Amino acid sequence: MQEIKKYAHLYSYGGGYMEKAPVYKTMSMYKADKIRKFTEQVFKSIGCPAKDARLAADILVSADLNGVDSHGVARLAGYVRLYDHGRLNPAPEIKVIHETPSTATVDGDRGLGLVVAPYAMKLAMKKAKKTGSGWVSVQNSNHFGIAGYHASLALEQDMIGWAMTNAAPLVVPTFSREKLLGTNPIAVAVPAGEQPAFLADFATTAVAYGKMEILQRKGEKAPIGWVQDEAGNPTDNANAVKEGGGLLPLGGDREHGSHKGYGLGAVVDIFSGVLSGANFGPWVPPFATAGFQGVAAEQVGRGTGHFLGAMRIDGFRPKEEFKAHMDKWITRFRSAKAVDGQSVQIPGDQERRYKAERLAQGIPLNDKVVESLAELGERFGIKW
Amino acid sequence: MQEIKKYAHLYSYGGGYMEKAPVYKTMSMYKADKIRKFTEQVFKSIGCPAKDARLAADILVSADLNGVDSHGVARLAGYVRLYDHGRLNPAPEIKVIHETPSTATVDGDRGLGLVVAPYAMKLAMKKAKKTGSGWVSVQNSNHFGIAGYHASLALEQDMIGWAMTNAAPLVVPTFSREKLLGTNPIAVAVPAGEQPAFLADFATTAVAYGKMEILQRKGEKAPIGWVQDEAGNPTDNANAVKEGGGLLPLGGDREHGSHKGYGLGAVVDIFSGVLSGANFGPWVPPFATAGFQGVAAEQVGRGTGHFLGAMRIDGFRPKEEFKAHMDKWITRFRSAKAVDGQSVQIPGDQERRYKAERLAQGIPLNDKVVESLAELGERFGIKW
Repeated sequence: MQEIKKYAHLYSYGGGYMEKAPVYKTMSMYKADKIRKFTEQVFKSIGCPAKDARLAADILVSADLNGVDSHGVARLAGYVRLYDHGRLNPAPEIKVIHETPSTATVDGDRGLGLVVAPYAMKLAMKKAKKTGSGWVSVQNSNHFGIAGYHASLALEQDMIGWAMTNAAPLVVPTFSREKLLGTNPIAVAVPAGEQPAFLADFATTAVAYGKMEILQRKGEKAPIGWVQDEAGNPTDNANAVKEGGGLLPLGGDREHGSHKGYGLGAVVDIFSGVLSGANFGPWVPPFATAGFQGVAAEQVGRGTGHFLGAMRIDGFRPKEEFKAHMDKWITRFRSAKAVDGQSVQIPGDQERRYKAERLAQGIPLNDKVVESLAELGERFGIKW
Repeated sequence: MQEIKKYAHLYSYGGGYMEKAPVYKTMSMYKADKIRKFTEQVFKSIGCPAKDARLAADILVSADLNGVDSHGVARLAGYVRLYDHGRLNPAPEIKVIHETPSTATVDGDRGLGLVVAPYAMKLAMKKAKKTGSGWVSVQNSNHFGIAGYHASLALEQDMIGWAMTNAAPLVVPTFSREKLLGTNPIAVAVPAGEQPAFLADFATTAVAYGKMEILQRKGEKAPIGWVQDEAGNPTDNANAVKEGGGLLPLGGDREHGSHKGYGLGAVVDIFSGVLSGANFGPWVPPFATAGFQGVAAEQVGRGTGHFLGAMRIDGFRPKEEFKAHMDKWITRFRSAKAVDGQSVQIPGDQERRYKAERLAQGIPLNDKVVESLAELGERFGIKW
């Protein structure tokens, strides 16, 4: 553990999509292994089977390693709060409730999304092995962590992986004053040959909610194009979402294509929620950290929904041919003539940079997160 | 045929994605049937079999009816030009060159994308009928018209349809000064019950190239966030793409999420081009109307690539349950409290509005398009 300052520039930038980003005023470095072991014990303490606790801890630490701090161990107290509120079944009986050779729907039995989503992804991969592709919608689940983790499971079997989830409403469709969609992320993982894998993993909004929280705490204004106010006007008020406004879809406004971001977020919602029988649109229940949102009184389905998919590369062309072309794609894009002082990155590069740095030097946790972990440690008698 | 003025407000707005939008200074109205018959005869005249000519004509007219004027009969002369340049095989032997029960790759034999894509979509649907889902990548094809047409084929069998295509490079990845991606559209069609279907159909760019052309001809400036100049700076120069600049991905700049639009366009390129063995990235050949672009000297694959998919609704849950929930989704979103003077639309509403209007009153064609049709009529001895 050591005080750090040198990474400060990274934290205001943020990695991936964030609903809840910590503010890094004072922070300390911790080894990934320490965090993983502690997290695993906390999940065990609320009744998760050993294997599930290990998997869930691995996914949270993976988010921290990849720089998506908002979806890492900073959320651990939130998962416990879900349990405290009776919304989380720590030992679910996850089961397939509908299927064909290449599709299925899974009932997550109110389990941790961190456990339910990998179950569904592995089912998709099993189906892909047999029939070329597999697609699994999930109902009755909870927050599943970073989408990229689940999509990337496909890589080890030379498959393309997809992961999507719906989430509690923070986002306004184009011209809407009501928040009807979550930040609804999509992740697509594609294997390459010599080059590292391609991993696109992003929320379908202009910007993550965590960015607004950072601005709120700093007392700064937001760039136009991130949020609107209660009347639906563009605003630079970083508190707008709490004051009746909403996050804008990717594109920002109609002139810059917000109807496309809205369409994309809607596709994620329909695949995750409507196809599975989960809640959808404004009825998706919030994660337990979202203090200013209630659970919708009406429920139109069961829990939160996900959608996971896997396609075998050799369902389309010989693997080695594909990988050689992916390498060519990646090297061509990476070597593109760039704007002064910048370089062209491949989706996944940022996560890999964070991971190399944090494996070597530790994961930075701010005081507030460390405090929440210490409280959990005290409650469950686990040494932090 | 009658002179019109009352629709002028619609044309500057534009429907869907456009690479090539006509400027409606003076225009006349024509019945869809007249255009369809003429177009069919032109396709026959270059050697397309009767059935293919009819299908291709139907898709172009469908674009015009849906308000995507850039992809309608305005392109007919371009398809003929592709034929003249030896890049189009009017009577292709389309074949499956690789497959599993739920996936396939199709060789389009340099055929019209307008014919190759429906072949691939029908194959995807056939596979979906048997195994729950079907996914088909396509190589060696040409421009396939509007993506939404192909995706919507799935609706009649209570399936969800996907369609994507790559296209010639006009778009700069985030921080790139080089144009490496096409406008790479995605369409997703989802059936509903009492409500009309959901159809998201959009390019993965901030704005369609056709919008730039409209501004060029009017001598007007572009909003910041649509294009960058040769050095990679934001610009309001509507001629920027021709002068070494590029179209921006959906999101516009890094601060507003352009890396997400870039990631999405990249996924479309990889699925359409790399997975199929077609060209990808900067090597995708241009449509024959793109006057300021050459064909890349190096070819890394064969022709243009597409990706089509179909998933059976009842591969996931009973159809009637799904449809009832889609109706609930649609009515909830459509009734959202809206910004003053606006309403919240469902993806597909705009196309339906155009179609109702144009079926009743005719399709507006500007003088330049009419002239190009008259020339084709003269060349092939067909009465326009």
